[in-house]
Amino acid sequence: MTDLDTLSVNTIRGLCMDAVQKANSGHPGTPMGMAPVAYTLWQRFLRFDPDDPIWPNRDRFVLSEGHASALLWSLLYLTGVRTVDPDYEVLGRPAVTLDDLKSFRQLDSRCPGHPEYRWTSGVETTTGPLGQGVATSVGMAIAGQWLAARFNRDDFTLFDFDVYALAGDGCMMEGVSSEAASLAGHLRLSNLCWIYDSNRVTIEGHTDITFTEDVAARFLAYGWNVTTVADANDLGRISRAFHTFRAETERPTLILVHSHIGYGSPVEDSPKAHGAPFGPEGVRATKRVLGIPPDAGFHVPDGVPDWFARGIGARGAELRTAWEKTFDAYRSAYPDLADELERIQRRELPDGWEAALPTFPADPKGLASRDSSGRVLNAVAKAVPWVLGGSADLTPSTKTRLTFGGAGDFEPDDRSGRNLHFGVREHAAAAVANGMALTKLRPYWSGFLIFSDYAKAAIRLSALMEIPTVHIFTHDSIGVGEDGPTHQPVEQLAGLRATPGLLVFRPADANEVTETWRVVAALRRAPAAVVLSRQALPTFDRDRLGAASGVARGAYVLADADRGEPEVILLATGSEVALALAAHEELTAEGIASRVVSMPCWELFDRQPREYRDQVLPPSVTRRVAVEEGSTLGWDRYVGGAGAIVGMHTFGASAPLKQLLTEFGFTPERVSQVARELVASG
Amino acid sequence: MTDLDTLSVNTIRGLCMDAVQKANSGHPGTPMGMAPVAYTLWQRFLRFDPDDPIWPNRDRFVLSEGHASALLWSLLYLTGVRTVDPDYEVLGRPAVTLDDLKSFRQLDSRCPGHPEYRWTSGVETTTGPLGQGVATSVGMAIAGQWLAARFNRDDFTLFDFDVYALAGDGCMMEGVSSEAASLAGHLRLSNLCWIYDSNRVTIEGHTDITFTEDVAARFLAYGWNVTTVADANDLGRISRAFHTFRAETERPTLILVHSHIGYGSPVEDSPKAHGAPFGPEGVRATKRVLGIPPDAGFHVPDGVPDWFARGIGARGAELRTAWEKTFDAYRSAYPDLADELERIQRRELPDGWEAALPTFPADPKGLASRDSSGRVLNAVAKAVPWVLGGSADLTPSTKTRLTFGGAGDFEPDDRSGRNLHFGVREHAAAAVANGMALTKLRPYWSGFLIFSDYAKAAIRLSALMEIPTVHIFTHDSIGVGEDGPTHQPVEQLAGLRATPGLLVFRPADANEVTETWRVVAALRRAPAAVVLSRQALPTFDRDRLGAASGVARGAYVLADADRGEPEVILLATGSEVALALAAHEELTAEGIASRVVSMPCWELFDRQPREYRDQVLPPSVTRRVAVEEGSTLGWDRYVGGAGAIVGMHTFGASAPLKQLLTEFGFTPERVSQVARELVASG
Repeated sequence: MTDLDTLSVNTIRGLCMDAVQKANSGHPGTPMGMAPVAYTLWQRFLRFDPDDPIWPNRDRFVLSEGHASALLWSLLYLTGVRTVDPDYEVLGRPAVTLDDLKSFRQLDSRCPGHPEYRWTSGVETTTGPLGQGVATSVGMAIAGQWLAARFNRDDFTLFDFDVYALAGDGCMMEGVSSEAASLAGHLRLSNLCWIYDSNRVTIEGHTDITFTEDVAARFLAYGWNVTTVADANDLGRISRAFHTFRAETERPTLILVHSHIGYGSPVEDSPKAHGAPFGPEGVRATKRVLGIPPDAGFHVPDGVPDWFARGIGARGAELRTAWEKTFDAYRSAYPDLADELERIQRRELPDGWEAALPTFPADPKGLASRDSSGRVLNAVAKAVPWVLGGSADLTPSTKTRLTFGGAGDFEPDDRSGRNLHFGVREHAAAAVANGMALTKLRPYWSGFLIFSDYAKAAIRLSALMEIPTVHIFTHDSIGVGEDGPTHQPVEQLAGLRATPGLLVFRPADANEVTETWRVVAALRRAPAAVVLSRQALPTFDRDRLGAASGVARGAYVLADADRGEPEVILLATGSEVALALAAHEELTAEGIASRVVSMPCWELFDRQPREYRDQVLPPSVTRRVAVEEGSTLGWDRYVGGAGAIVGMHTFGASAPLKQLLTEFGFTPERVSQVARELVASG
Repeated sequence: MTDLDTLSVNTIRGLCMDAVQKANSGHPGTPMGMAPVAYTLWQRFLRFDPDDPIWPNRDRFVLSEGHASALLWSLLYLTGVRTVDPDYEVLGRPAVTLDDLKSFRQLDSRCPGHPEYRWTSGVETTTGPLGQGVATSVGMAIAGQWLAARFNRDDFTLFDFDVYALAGDGCMMEGVSSEAASLAGHLRLSNLCWIYDSNRVTIEGHTDITFTEDVAARFLAYGWNVTTVADANDLGRISRAFHTFRAETERPTLILVHSHIGYGSPVEDSPKAHGAPFGPEGVRATKRVLGIPPDAGFHVPDGVPDWFARGIGARGAELRTAWEKTFDAYRSAYPDLADELERIQRRELPDGWEAALPTFPADPKGLASRDSSGRVLNAVAKAVPWVLGGSADLTPSTKTRLTFGGAGDFEPDDRSGRNLHFGVREHAAAAVANGMALTKLRPYWSGFLIFSDYAKAAIRLSALMEIPTVHIFTHDSIGVGEDGPTHQPVEQLAGLRATPGLLVFRPADANEVTETWRVVAALRRAPAAVVLSRQALPTFDRDRLGAASGVARGAYVLADADRGEPEVILLATGSEVALALAAHEELTAEGIASRVVSMPCWELFDRQPREYRDQVLPPSVTRRVAVEEGSTLGWDRYVGGAGAIVGMHTFGASAPLKQLLTEFGFTPERVSQVARELVASG
């Protein structure tokens, strides 16, 4: 440990303390304890170029204990990371200034309370909800392996990056990290390194009060390499642990570091160090212990930034420029692959990818939307080689397997496969998919809609990060039938629709499925939930009815009154659109003029100009009936005060679908009756 | 293994096969493989009386792999379990008839697709979503230990029941079971036994494709006792394993059973055995293998029901009657405790429990609702000794610690404590609380509202089971402030409100908090989510304003126009009610007549008679403004087409609350301006 090492570590600590103190809010404990580990990783190991923080083969650093954000902000400031939009090019400005640090946790500061992807250059993923970072890191490691398998050639190593995640006791307790660790162990992701900050203190007290398992033994059981650092301040042992990780070729590595929360402060080793400033006196006392001038705020000694520039900066620049040189040669040798890689980085799709999208002929018997989606997904994935994914052990039911030649399985002995087996681990599946999306691949994962509950926290993060993860949910209603209420979603659509930025699609027939995928595959800055039926849905006769391309506008007129303004509008999504059509036919036969609006994506409809919205739902037609086999919550916006909603007001039941439709009132007779009553009432 | 053992096991298998075949739907694989284990447990060990399946000291059996419901239905049929409502008395009728089995998975059959609490007597908890059953079983085991500590006396052992849960590979992969197992190991719940049906086959194939961890080693790391049964058909070894469990006094036990999915069938050991009938030929072939008459459907050989009656039936009756005798003596010795126990069983509260509920004087500065709730919760818990709970490592923030004398901590060396430390394990916390509620205690758990996402699947089950679990969520909006968008809920309220049967409360001040708890503590058949602020809320002057007892009706008029009908109504919940009041005062000063409606619980308001609802929200007043720091989804129902909603349309941001209120438009000026515009518009 050189003087500059010590000086650098304590400079980080000082900045973190000061930032939290000035904000009078934040979490100083972990930065104080883990500064030496983060410093060693960044300065000596991390292959990261502050001048180009989105260089594709950089190592990834994930701060899974995201409340320690001050640690990351200090590192990004000291290394002088440049501003970048992750999907585009590097801009010149330093991303994190001393002023940003001084306005930690204030509006518009680049140093918010938790790391936010897109908002601060150098942040690889949004973290804060515990366990998410480590689970996401597994997806990054998978993506790294897959990219290597696809793009590396005997003479070109384009991808060999490592993924590091820093995790605390909280991350280790969360179920999602258990799922992800089990999967990572199975997949033998030797490019993955979790650093477990074992300070044995959580908010409620010492971990002895609730967390006494043997974490090392647990990870060995998952098939990980486990190594221990007895003292977080021992830079030599920390380095040795990272060398151990780099030497490991068969297993992911857990580095268990014994650390001291709030190191050097009066509240060291106490829960008090976790989430509150030390106070002006505490900060001064700590600075005295650490040899920092006690009254100098945000003190950066001469030589420290330069030391970082000579360490991580010089190493990163060298590696990145060498990579660029390699890539230039690669482009000459493999122009098609190089083009593909550049498109991936820019989040563009291959030219003409839409050509193979299937259209489906009218068919009264039709097919389940999970089936049509399976066909469309295969067409998309065949045209876009970096679309890959899998299911939480439900592929035969969700129909998401890629079956074309060469699709294969992603397994320890084949890193080029495009079908992943996530296991019965929905939460990890969604987080892993996020990690793959952050590495610019186009991942999907699938499960039953009811199990979106298990994955909700990771779905939310995909929306918050504005990344195009595709969440595929089948078995979307009481249409599940005999499996009963535990498996029949009711409130899930409402919860997903309420999530800002998430596009929720519930297509009505096979051609709406195709149009859904046309939108979804092209998404660059938004995730989508594609909600599909278990049961067969008729494929509508589009010669007679509105074109399925209306999906892109969120809602469209599928069937209309023969002439003039309708007396009543029937709105529906998914499997209930056919039901609305049947009711429409009944009403038409009676001489009641009705319109059917298919509404596969509320979010897209809400973004249309008022003119279009008024065209689909004319304000003058206030008699409206919405039909959806889910909670009625939210539909009032479209049916208005004079309308009615045929939806679910209770949980479902275990019975064949036909019985359930009658039991819960999803019949053409009921829907037309509700419409009839509305018309008669006024 | 006697002839009757073999005959019984194969009778169960035959019934399961036939039930699935007749339904042409269901999961025969696990029942075929695990019938010998379930049989051995029930017939030789389980302390369960079919004549009184809710006897308080019965052992609990949880079918965590709920898709194997046919196994449970067969056992309940063969043992002749009587009908019972779990909260009340035993009725005479057999709960599961042969006709029920024959109508497996049909509407109104007592044998639905997955076990449903309340619907079928003998079902201890609703299962199906994997991992939930095992996690819930931990709560039952905790409750068992707590009941023993509270009620047992040197001369009276009222509680010493064991909890068994049958789990498959899927349960073992789910994160929630990892959380729960880690907690159970820490708490040294020696009355808990998980039976791991390791058939190594899941829906996508052999577990080798994704689940290769060493489960036994993992559980040893959690601090469990682990024992293995090499052959699920070896009743002797199975019995020995249960004896091992019973002899263990320090740790929970995992019995790892190597089994064969679809045992005896043509699809044995294949994923095909999991979720589809064997087909008529397959059933016949299997019956021939197992010595069941191949053409006899639902065959129950003479002697089998009687054999069960002489086994589990006789044992259970003897234990139960002995317990009742003991309890009679106990009642004489400890009348108060006996009274308490009887109230617990009937889900009644102590007389006069409400007397100590605090009321709060008007205070413009006020206090955070998490703080007032902490005070009220302590008053409730002091009056109701079986109220207990804790937090997912956030007690100092959620203010849910019980601080009165003797409350203590529930820990391995003190089973009488009322404060639990769930650790950073929200999902398990909610499931464990469900398990405690199923054991008739009145549990709560707490966390930040954002982390309701982690626990959603268990929250849903509390609603589906209609059990009074209390979910306490603080930090309920952008009021979180500096922690930023990862910690600021937006869509969570909508998702919870859409859940059938869940009462969601967002009280506006300290007295609404008291009234919320008055409703919540008395709930017997519904769970509640109590949603609370981090920041201080003024305590309203109730002499001037509507009474807080309006909470019980879901919504009420808090402030009104001086005379006549208001021109505009302001609706709000929680922290936004004070904001609406401020806007109301601005409008009043301008001569605009407005009304403020506090709306802490939509669900209760929706249940009021139309007359009351029209009184609070007169249909003639169509100018309405809703204010809530959350997704606007759902509010249209109350504001109507002519109204406006001031809500969140994006995620939040990291900054002090004051900045955020301006940034996102939650100011009296903005609200009054929106109201003013509505009034002006016509």
